[in-house]
Amino acid sequence: MSLYFSVMDYFYEPLLHPESKSITLKGNEAMHILKVLRYSAGAALTLLDGRGGVYDGVISGTSHNELEIKISQSIIKSPSDSRLNLGLGLIKKTERIEWFIEKAIEIGISEINIFYSANSEKKKFNMERMQKIAVAAMKQSGNPWLPVINGPVSFGSLIKTNFQGAKYIGYCGSEKEIHLAKSYKKGTDAFILIGPEGDFTREEVILAEKEGFNKISLGDNRLRSETAALASLMIVDTINNR
Amino acid sequence: MSLYFSVMDYFYEPLLHPESKSITLKGNEAMHILKVLRYSAGAALTLLDGRGGVYDGVISGTSHNELEIKISQSIIKSPSDSRLNLGLGLIKKTERIEWFIEKAIEIGISEINIFYSANSEKKKFNMERMQKIAVAAMKQSGNPWLPVINGPVSFGSLIKTNFQGAKYIGYCGSEKEIHLAKSYKKGTDAFILIGPEGDFTREEVILAEKEGFNKISLGDNRLRSETAALASLMIVDTINNR
Repeated sequence: MSLYFSVMDYFYEPLLHPESKSITLKGNEAMHILKVLRYSAGAALTLLDGRGGVYDGVISGTSHNELEIKISQSIIKSPSDSRLNLGLGLIKKTERIEWFIEKAIEIGISEINIFYSANSEKKKFNMERMQKIAVAAMKQSGNPWLPVINGPVSFGSLIKTNFQGAKYIGYCGSEKEIHLAKSYKKGTDAFILIGPEGDFTREEVILAEKEGFNKISLGDNRLRSETAALASLMIVDTINNR
Repeated sequence: MSLYFSVMDYFYEPLLHPESKSITLKGNEAMHILKVLRYSAGAALTLLDGRGGVYDGVISGTSHNELEIKISQSIIKSPSDSRLNLGLGLIKKTERIEWFIEKAIEIGISEINIFYSANSEKKKFNMERMQKIAVAAMKQSGNPWLPVINGPVSFGSLIKTNFQGAKYIGYCGSEKEIHLAKSYKKGTDAFILIGPEGDFTREEVILAEKEGFNKISLGDNRLRSETAALASLMIVDTINNR
């Protein structure tokens, strides 16, 4: 490992698989390792495939923009016992979505769906940038699971997604609803919808209820959309770790 | 309420107290209400005192930069059953501390202590700006409790703080420690220390243990400092809401 870092660096290579004996890294990741981190032949490093695989390897050869890595061992981590699929309404400030994606991947999440709804800002969503943020968070946190990020999709189509598990819709008008921390059962798969600024409309809530989503509260305070999304994830994660 | 807003606005006035019959708002808050939100005499609004009090009032008079509010009713919310005192090491990017403060107040927290430790960046900490962010988050979320924000203090003095309750130190070297979600008991007061980038040193952990702090894990992933701090808060909050 590079002398410049006291903490282990993780790298991402989706082409790795449990039988990989070696891999050639190219492009930005290879350049970063060679030119910025200044790894050279013989250096040990750890790679993630984004599907639960963690690979220890040693650099066996380098050229000006490629490096060959010999895999010494791999561990395939099992996915968590429960899937969390989160739907987040498209909000005004993109940096708040980016922030949520970073944090969600640090904690661990199965799927993120960004959607348009009645109160969403109809703005562009840069999926390529979101994927970059997701990969950076995966490498930073060492989480071997890269979630699926979809979107933006319409609220109407998202609620019709086939999903076996508990389905929830967070709604500010529902202070008297049961708190997610009380409702969620350890080990179950969950699909949670969080609205944009201005929340869901009454009509949207009724539509979601028809599709089997249950209204839940996240407490007395009025949470920003990205806070509500992360709070939902943390509630599910806490109960599964309890 | 202003026609421009479909969601209730909250305002902050620390001089309010349960016996207040009226209050005069001056300065920035008054200017904001009059010039930006364009409230006028007769408009209803809700104020927070930052100590659990929520006051409904009506504007009874305005001048060019002041407004008089008649309080129609007040509710004093009880504090949560358990106090959470969080210590966060000073980290490189101030915006990440600011982000934590915003989110912590949306969720609810009793006290935030920013500290310097061996691996902290020795940089300036703008307390005035942090207080502004705290007040903005309080008004945004309607959380009637404004937490105490202290700092930066030294790690050595912070761990000697007199605190009756469970004391924890999050430490990346402690994957085999018990997870906070398993260790924390509902309804107890907690004091949780989260290190800066680069984490606590081995020596700091030993010092904290001598002062009664127990090492805890926050899961397998390597969390950024501000993520670990918010995760700690969310774990405690989830268990108290369960």
